[in-house]
Amino acid sequence: MRAIRKTKAGPGLEVVDVPEPTCGPSDVLIRVHHAGVCGTDLHIAEWDEWARGRIKPPVVVGHEFAGEVVEVGEDVGAEFATGQLVTAEGHITCGHCRQCRTGNGHICQRTQIIGVDRDGAFAELIAMPATNVMALNGIPTTIGAIMDPMGNAFHTVLTGAEVPGSIVVIEGCGPIGCFAVGIARAAGAAMVIASDVNPTRLGLAEKMGAHVVVRADQEDLVARVHEVTNGEGADLVCEMSGHPTALEQAFKVARLGGRVNLLGLPKGAVSLQLSNDVIFRGLTVYGVIGRRMYETWHQMRTFLSHGLLDPTPVITHRYPLERIADALEAIASGAAGKVILEIGGTA
Amino acid sequence: MRAIRKTKAGPGLEVVDVPEPTCGPSDVLIRVHHAGVCGTDLHIAEWDEWARGRIKPPVVVGHEFAGEVVEVGEDVGAEFATGQLVTAEGHITCGHCRQCRTGNGHICQRTQIIGVDRDGAFAELIAMPATNVMALNGIPTTIGAIMDPMGNAFHTVLTGAEVPGSIVVIEGCGPIGCFAVGIARAAGAAMVIASDVNPTRLGLAEKMGAHVVVRADQEDLVARVHEVTNGEGADLVCEMSGHPTALEQAFKVARLGGRVNLLGLPKGAVSLQLSNDVIFRGLTVYGVIGRRMYETWHQMRTFLSHGLLDPTPVITHRYPLERIADALEAIASGAAGKVILEIGGTA
Amino acid sequence: MRAIRKTKAGPGLEVVDVPEPTCGPSDVLIRVHHAGVCGTDLHIAEWDEWARGRIKPPVVVGHEFAGEVVEVGEDVGAEFATGQLVTAEGHITCGHCRQCRTGNGHICQRTQIIGVDRDGAFAELIAMPATNVMALNGIPTTIGAIMDPMGNAFHTVLTGAEVPGSIVVIEGCGPIGCFAVGIARAAGAAMVIASDVNPTRLGLAEKMGAHVVVRADQEDLVARVHEVTNGEGADLVCEMSGHPTALEQAFKVARLGGRVNLLGLPKGAVSLQLSNDVIFRGLTVYGVIGRRMYETWHQMRTFLSHGLLDPTPVITHRYPLERIADALEAIASGAAGKVILEIGGTA
Amino acid sequence: MRAIRKTKAGPGLEVVDVPEPTCGPSDVLIRVHHAGVCGTDLHIAEWDEWARGRIKPPVVVGHEFAGEVVEVGEDVGAEFATGQLVTAEGHITCGHCRQCRTGNGHICQRTQIIGVDRDGAFAELIAMPATNVMALNGIPTTIGAIMDPMGNAFHTVLTGAEVPGSIVVIEGCGPIGCFAVGIARAAGAAMVIASDVNPTRLGLAEKMGAHVVVRADQEDLVARVHEVTNGEGADLVCEMSGHPTALEQAFKVARLGGRVNLLGLPKGAVSLQLSNDVIFRGLTVYGVIGRRMYETWHQMRTFLSHGLLDPTPVITHRYPLERIADALEAIASGAAGKVILEIGGTA
Repeated sequence: MRAIRKTKAGPGLEVVDVPEPTCGPSDVLIRVHHAGVCGTDLHIAEWDEWARGRIKPPVVVGHEFAGEVVEVGEDVGAEFATGQLVTAEGHITCGHCRQCRTGNGHICQRTQIIGVDRDGAFAELIAMPATNVMALNGIPTTIGAIMDPMGNAFHTVLTGAEVPGSIVVIEGCGPIGCFAVGIARAAGAAMVIASDVNPTRLGLAEKMGAHVVVRADQEDLVARVHEVTNGEGADLVCEMSGHPTALEQAFKVARLGGRVNLLGLPKGAVSLQLSNDVIFRGLTVYGVIGRRMYETWHQMRTFLSHGLLDPTPVITHRYPLERIADALEAIASGAAGKVILEIGGTA
Repeated sequence: MRAIRKTKAGPGLEVVDVPEPTCGPSDVLIRVHHAGVCGTDLHIAEWDEWARGRIKPPVVVGHEFAGEVVEVGEDVGAEFATGQLVTAEGHITCGHCRQCRTGNGHICQRTQIIGVDRDGAFAELIAMPATNVMALNGIPTTIGAIMDPMGNAFHTVLTGAEVPGSIVVIEGCGPIGCFAVGIARAAGAAMVIASDVNPTRLGLAEKMGAHVVVRADQEDLVARVHEVTNGEGADLVCEMSGHPTALEQAFKVARLGGRVNLLGLPKGAVSLQLSNDVIFRGLTVYGVIGRRMYETWHQMRTFLSHGLLDPTPVITHRYPLERIADALEAIASGAAGKVILEIGGTA
Repeated sequence: MRAIRKTKAGPGLEVVDVPEPTCGPSDVLIRVHHAGVCGTDLHIAEWDEWARGRIKPPVVVGHEFAGEVVEVGEDVGAEFATGQLVTAEGHITCGHCRQCRTGNGHICQRTQIIGVDRDGAFAELIAMPATNVMALNGIPTTIGAIMDPMGNAFHTVLTGAEVPGSIVVIEGCGPIGCFAVGIARAAGAAMVIASDVNPTRLGLAEKMGAHVVVRADQEDLVARVHEVTNGEGADLVCEMSGHPTALEQAFKVARLGGRVNLLGLPKGAVSLQLSNDVIFRGLTVYGVIGRRMYETWHQMRTFLSHGLLDPTPVITHRYPLERIADALEAIASGAAGKVILEIGGTA
Repeated sequence: MRAIRKTKAGPGLEVVDVPEPTCGPSDVLIRVHHAGVCGTDLHIAEWDEWARGRIKPPVVVGHEFAGEVVEVGEDVGAEFATGQLVTAEGHITCGHCRQCRTGNGHICQRTQIIGVDRDGAFAELIAMPATNVMALNGIPTTIGAIMDPMGNAFHTVLTGAEVPGSIVVIEGCGPIGCFAVGIARAAGAAMVIASDVNPTRLGLAEKMGAHVVVRADQEDLVARVHEVTNGEGADLVCEMSGHPTALEQAFKVARLGGRVNLLGLPKGAVSLQLSNDVIFRGLTVYGVIGRRMYETWHQMRTFLSHGLLDPTPVITHRYPLERIADALEAIASGAAGKVILEIGGTA
């Protein structure tokens, strides 16, 4: 079958023929219809420091996808059938550590990620453990293909804060930030304020429902948030950029007793005024990684299948599998929302 | 000034002239623009068993209102000024019991209710402790006048359940049930199912956004909820009728591990299948009384001032103060949504 | 191997030789050292209405046990090894329903219980899915054998209430109630009040640390709780008897805004004063079933392995497997705490 | 009356005669029996940068105290009477900001602190708003005098984490850290690990029940915590030192998905590895300031009056009011636990 592979150490990805995966007794074999391209794939292609430390070529890349069930392992129950449209959680957890046994699989330290630690989804077929597979229940595979990053946004927006009637700041309007804007709106936020340095991305954030957009390189975000909130600040701040300035501002735009959920990954150390910005202000801060397995997926599926959220404006580019280079270039340009590969199927 | 008073023990209410209240040092004196008429007022007029046990005539009735500040007590800070439009929490709590000191004033056992235990709001003027007064921040007094019962609905819908993306059943579509429908929608419920025996009330529930309405006297609510939820049931059930059948059904329409918030007051004992309906199903049940002071009010004010919720369809009748008898008759007919008195002002 | 079996429909249990179970690829085969005898086993022996509806003979009974690993299935990871002492959760859940996928396996509707729906633990050997097995980490198998019912007590005492510094009422001092007393003490309850009609059981509750014991058939529990709590009532009430009077009292002894966790299973309908006892008092009620998988087990293992709780006073009778009839008689007499079978091993 | 006063800008405190305070209509006048001396008092005496920016002399200092009611204001209800022993919350909040109205008075931005912003408790008499006064209910005034800092410890230990059965690390064993050790033990922590650089303080921590004490200047705290927790780390970390190294370590000793509550105030910016230490590990961080009004006080009073906690080992020095210089010197030496002034009374 055709697949996009990191064949050997060094920059680049190859479109090659590889053997079809086999369906183990606990697996579901899926024909991939659509797959989402992520910044992580770009890191792997560019062979940056993180990739050099983590990736063991050869490996088929890609971890965001949806498709059609073509084979069901013999030990898998009646919940899956051939022809069914599905997506899957790409983090394959160990299942028996304390985290996995207590509902915290998203921080399992023995997690294997498809497309990173084992063969992934930029291929015509992928075999997944049935426990990781989610029926799409009518959601199209174009949307199913981006539920992995959308799940990061759900986890960030809906953890620990009461969003209905609240003021939410979203820092960073990449695809996950744009999803977060739409989720906050769907969850009844009274005001969503989105910031980024990129006007194209802010345009997407507006399409997703942001009430206020802030050019973080031209305006003082802290001043602007206080202006539009009568000096109170935001009930919830979702930091999705990882940028040091945005991180510093995240704590200053939160209201007294408010919450800051951190998803964006800063490189290296970040300098914080903990006394003035966190302790005296009674803030709660939460580190977000992955998706809750599988609360986040159920929540997301309900939002999408009931039409509470339409993420399609965020999908700005579509390419066939062979044009992965163009897909990565679109991401690298900073002008893209979500980029997806059309691999098979039609839904 | 003109006021509606329970003058003496026995049925009936009188429209009479009474002395104007004085503004104590910790009070705010308010010219009433609009007031909401409640089933409680009907009980007082009809002099039912509850009223006979609780009311000590003479007392000016009415506990839902909004109006304009005309005098501010000398010990009240700068947060209030004459001319300001305000509403007020009608439960005047003791302020120093354990409940009051730990954020649970709604269950203070020394609460005095205006219009019940002391002179109320069906009058041209009312003096309220400043602690109970809330600035309307642009919300009109017609809406401000019904924030007391709307607050019951906020308390019921938004306590303990994560409403965004959830399935919500509202049992009983009186005014508070109809508000609850709108609140659940504004808070991002995936599906709101409303039930009542009265088609007029179900019509209001539909206007407020119910996805599904159920004639509880003609359809099997339990069967219908399971049908529209693929057999799962509701994440949250708000019981607002107090009817024994509805109460019994409340536990059966909740999903496994779901939540039932009880606001409607049944008369006498209710027979429940606790083992099958609550314990084996892992439900959580919560008794709702009043409004959280003042989390509910802040929440409500944010919803209303940001346009997340428009409760005006629920207001079906308006009368001048003198026509209180007509107002009570409209309520008694069962055909009314919320009935308000136009007492003064124009907002 | 020797085992205690319900051989055919009708009263009685037989001690018989049965084939040894085989260890499937995902299983762990365990030599049973100790097993706990439960009221459920008595129901099965007596062939009561519940048993007639649920049990399909022949089936080996018993669901509470601990023992030594003698074989590890080929698909099971390194977390188990032969010789290791373990216990196990006896509820084998489906693993893929919404409840199982969102941390609520205790209310999975496709649960199979060992000793009820499939062969159980009153036998020399039992094969268990590795996912259900818990290493004892130094806890002796006498204690490991009763972690199933102790887990019910942990689930009841530690769900939803902040026990440190709180007033806790335990209604019903069977073994689970006595465990609950000890757990509440270990968790820092300021006062534990235990009630039962049986003085032997109240004696055990005192040994486990109850500050106050109440003979519910001779004293008015409601009056007594209010007396010893200055009229405030209890922060948390754990109802573990299922008795209608105790259930009614449970809501009356809870403080305003308090919590009632229901574990005891009443037969048939229970009549409750919902308005006065639950709604006006702002109570929260929770139905407890089973153990949280596996939060409860981790919690319990930590308490036991750090010596926070010594449940041994609750174990009042020990018998060899052949004397199951005596064991059941001890339970039926009402004079027993926990009764265990000594099947193999020595720990 | 005699009082300790910061008379004018510059180092030093004076013991002087000042007029007795008057009891306003909403106040309670209290004869001070005992008062706690705090690091804040030392800052005021030394006239450090913080003191120069905040203190407006002349002001009577001292904010931790307990004593006897000698006069009750005319508007104060029956809950206080002369002769009653009481303590008080020293933060006098505005009462009408959003924080105060929603149970978050501890972060009210208009708070006035006694002994800092208005006359304080190092005096024979102090007038306090009745809302701030707490009856001691049998707790002696020596203990009542230190409930303010003990309340910080309660707030830190008991917010957001389930302490029963958990592993708790306390960083910094000044008086508040030592209280925290005792509170964690009373609340059923399975293991309490305390760290400090000062062996005297670690000795106090051991007296208060620490299972493990770590000389942070001689041992690697991170390695030690992982060693004694089988590599898992702590469920809850209470950072009470404000030291940059301890802060950095706080996030590393927390378990995956664990919680870090920050009370110690670092000076200036702190450099954190947010990606590796907070985000990838799914931590929750909370900034602690003051005491919850008045949940913390109720909780603390219950612990103390039921004997769950004995804080007396932490009190190492007692002086009469005139020897305030010696009291401050004891604190400055680092060798003291809690230092109290004996001002009046005998309890």
